Amino acid sequence: MSKLLDDLAAILGDGLLQTEAERNARARDTWMRSQIPVSAGSPVVPPLAVCAPSSSEELAAVVRACIAHDTAMIPRGGGSGVVGGVLANADSVVLSTERMTGLRAFSSTDLLATFGAGTNGLEAEQRMQAEGLSIGHWPQSIELSTVGGWVATRASGQYSTFFGNIEDMVYSLQAVLADGSIYRSRATPRASAGPDLRHLLMGGEGTLGVITEVTFSVRQQPESEVRQAFHFGDFDAGLEAARKLMRAGWRPAVLRLYDGRESWRHFRERLPKGNAMLILAHMGPAALTAVEADAVSTICESNDGVAAADEVVDGWFEHRNTVPTWDELLAQGIVADTIEIAADWTRLPKLYRAVIDALEAVEGVVAASAHSSHAYRSGANLYFTVAATPAVPEDYTSTYDAFWSAAMNAAASVGAGLAHHHGVGRVRRDWMREELGIGGLSMLRSVKKAIDPHGLMNPGVLVP
Amino acid sequence: MSKLLDDLAAILGDGLLQTEAERNARARDTWMRSQIPVSAGSPVVPPLAVCAPSSSEELAAVVRACIAHDTAMIPRGGGSGVVGGVLANADSVVLSTERMTGLRAFSSTDLLATFGAGTNGLEAEQRMQAEGLSIGHWPQSIELSTVGGWVATRASGQYSTFFGNIEDMVYSLQAVLADGSIYRSRATPRASAGPDLRHLLMGGEGTLGVITEVTFSVRQQPESEVRQAFHFGDFDAGLEAARKLMRAGWRPAVLRLYDGRESWRHFRERLPKGNAMLILAHMGPAALTAVEADAVSTICESNDGVAAADEVVDGWFEHRNTVPTWDELLAQGIVADTIEIAADWTRLPKLYRAVIDALEAVEGVVAASAHSSHAYRSGANLYFTVAATPAVPEDYTSTYDAFWSAAMNAAASVGAGLAHHHGVGRVRRDWMREELGIGGLSMLRSVKKAIDPHGLMNPGVLVP
Repeated sequence: MSKLLDDLAAILGDGLLQTEAERNARARDTWMRSQIPVSAGSPVVPPLAVCAPSSSEELAAVVRACIAHDTAMIPRGGGSGVVGGVLANADSVVLSTERMTGLRAFSSTDLLATFGAGTNGLEAEQRMQAEGLSIGHWPQSIELSTVGGWVATRASGQYSTFFGNIEDMVYSLQAVLADGSIYRSRATPRASAGPDLRHLLMGGEGTLGVITEVTFSVRQQPESEVRQAFHFGDFDAGLEAARKLMRAGWRPAVLRLYDGRESWRHFRERLPKGNAMLILAHMGPAALTAVEADAVSTICESNDGVAAADEVVDGWFEHRNTVPTWDELLAQGIVADTIEIAADWTRLPKLYRAVIDALEAVEGVVAASAHSSHAYRSGANLYFTVAATPAVPEDYTSTYDAFWSAAMNAAASVGAGLAHHHGVGRVRRDWMREELGIGGLSMLRSVKKAIDPHGLMNPGVLVP
Repeated sequence: MSKLLDDLAAILGDGLLQTEAERNARARDTWMRSQIPVSAGSPVVPPLAVCAPSSSEELAAVVRACIAHDTAMIPRGGGSGVVGGVLANADSVVLSTERMTGLRAFSSTDLLATFGAGTNGLEAEQRMQAEGLSIGHWPQSIELSTVGGWVATRASGQYSTFFGNIEDMVYSLQAVLADGSIYRSRATPRASAGPDLRHLLMGGEGTLGVITEVTFSVRQQPESEVRQAFHFGDFDAGLEAARKLMRAGWRPAVLRLYDGRESWRHFRERLPKGNAMLILAHMGPAALTAVEADAVSTICESNDGVAAADEVVDGWFEHRNTVPTWDELLAQGIVADTIEIAADWTRLPKLYRAVIDALEAVEGVVAASAHSSHAYRSGANLYFTVAATPAVPEDYTSTYDAFWSAAMNAAASVGAGLAHHHGVGRVRRDWMREELGIGGLSMLRSVKKAIDPHGLMNPGVLVP
């Protein structure tokens, strides 16, 4: 392997990171399961080396060198993923986008902004805000994640119901494919020119290549924002109101419905126990948000929704990205995770109950709840939170696996989509046959083999 | 080949169409270039047979039989394509979706409707309208095209600026792949579960498989529609107004700007010669269309737009799908076509002039004009119409090829996207390297080889 390291050093210079601290810091993402042994004192397994190229061309040379040395490559952005999409071992090399950063091209007239894939999400958004613009993508991870990671994982942001998901924001992209070639998609607002190949990279989770540059179709910062909240007798009643307002053609940027448990946890002074809180933020031209807020209010009230104080929404905005670290939870003996699933409106109440019941039946689970945070004409997501307090640390991993299995099997039995926006990584990999079907899985394997014939790009992720 | 026909007859029964009339009627799409020899009296070259299976399973058996006999397969929907995506020869078999029709599943609650791929577009839309709903996809070809064809070609409809393009309407789909396997995408409103494999079929133009069933996320019929029109001193001024109203966050379903030539052709009593007419239709909840119409009117007027009578828009709605047939034009000695291209706002004026100049420089061209009919935050399409009157019929095909070459090369030189919504077929195939880049073309070829290892599915289309 020292020959590979020599080759990489020749390509990268000081972009080859070899100290143990540098390698340890980039060996993983933020998967709870990989944190369990580390919190218990096991050492992190560092990769052989971390490659931090400055350009697509450098990265392409790195990929070719790794292929020549039959060495697995693990693409990595901000490391904020929570499904085990980044997990190095001692024989693999991490491909980090950390030196491919910053705004590279920008046209306010065209609302186009090109960023290096390693650009921190919040920095990219703030750069646009300085121009009076916005990318419009606000994942909870925005302070940690990278724009390339957003695209590679098909991420969703908190304002997706109006602004869309990441695939609705990408104008064009550049990637180094698993064979060391460079792909640049055509920069055009829309094309009917064969399959949209960008979609192989969007959601590819680094198994087909590494995204190196992303051009967003950005937008003006919304002229106005109107916040409102309503609570409903139960979660199903809130879902029904959400369905109706989507059906009527309204698109609040934030449309977030908490079940009775989470509503009581967050808003107990604002509603009766068991009621479900719906928080809404309307964004856009002032004339639009005014009529939207009125119309949505009418729909909520005619569905027995009770208006809550606007401060409910303000509180959510203030605390929306505050979450405990896995380490903090593990220190309290808590094994936890979030599991996002999607389904059509008819299935959502069944899905909610099936997953909650399945989670609660797992030994050690002490809390299971959900909210819906991304809505569409034909359905919405559910975002489950589960916490367990296994009797002994030796049970942490098996408990974690058990509640994931329970949730995935329950969701599959209801016919739901098994992954809304966190991706597959390792945690959902064994349910990909269920998700894609036999035909789809065979198609995914064919594509993987075609683009990554050596099987060296992020092995172990996505493809069972 | 009689062994193949025996095998197909055993699978299909009377779904195997073998008369010359049946085969001739399904040998082609509506490509002007393939009409030229036929109008001149050359016989149509019919396929060996037409297979019209009734189910995905039957079609899968047909595909496996064709593979066993090393026979090329030509998928066909309504035959309304205009780029040569369907063109049989005497050794190939046409796979027609004509017997896979009708509404197969429907949920008004979920706004989900599943149609057989061969369902006529207008019939599908009317079926939804009977429920108070709409697919929202209104291509000019709606009376001729099929829902499967819409998806296979990544089509756009006349209301796309609000309702989106076909990829924004598809919820899930089913297809028989080139290897005879059946692919069913997961029915879920949104997924982060690997690459969105539906995108290999959307725009695949039948080169990777045949779409057999499409589920749309439909919508309520708009509660209201407000029409208005404005004319501008020239095309560029109209584009600038369109850019500004998109930037402000408004989304008129119809946003259609004619250049001076087309405006004079269609609306000469309504504007000064040279002015560009913008027609708009706002659709949605009444409260929304009212404020949108007001805001858009303000933007147009502050960009020196002059309000035109609403009847201008009514006239467009009435005549929007009335176009002469190629045969009618050829009978008058006219060779013509439409060429749709897309670019960002900054490039559009340059693109307009470059393509018009290039078309006018082609010997025999007597008219070249354009309108823009699909707008986005970051750009729009241009839809060119070109007509030539070659001196002699022997020059028809070479003139046709010359004006296509001129338009494609001019568009490429400006950095535009070479195909907005008609697809690639045969007419744009030789520009796919330009459109996709070397990396993209190599990726497309890898995918094609992976999904269609025998190279028997719609050969000659899309992939150069």
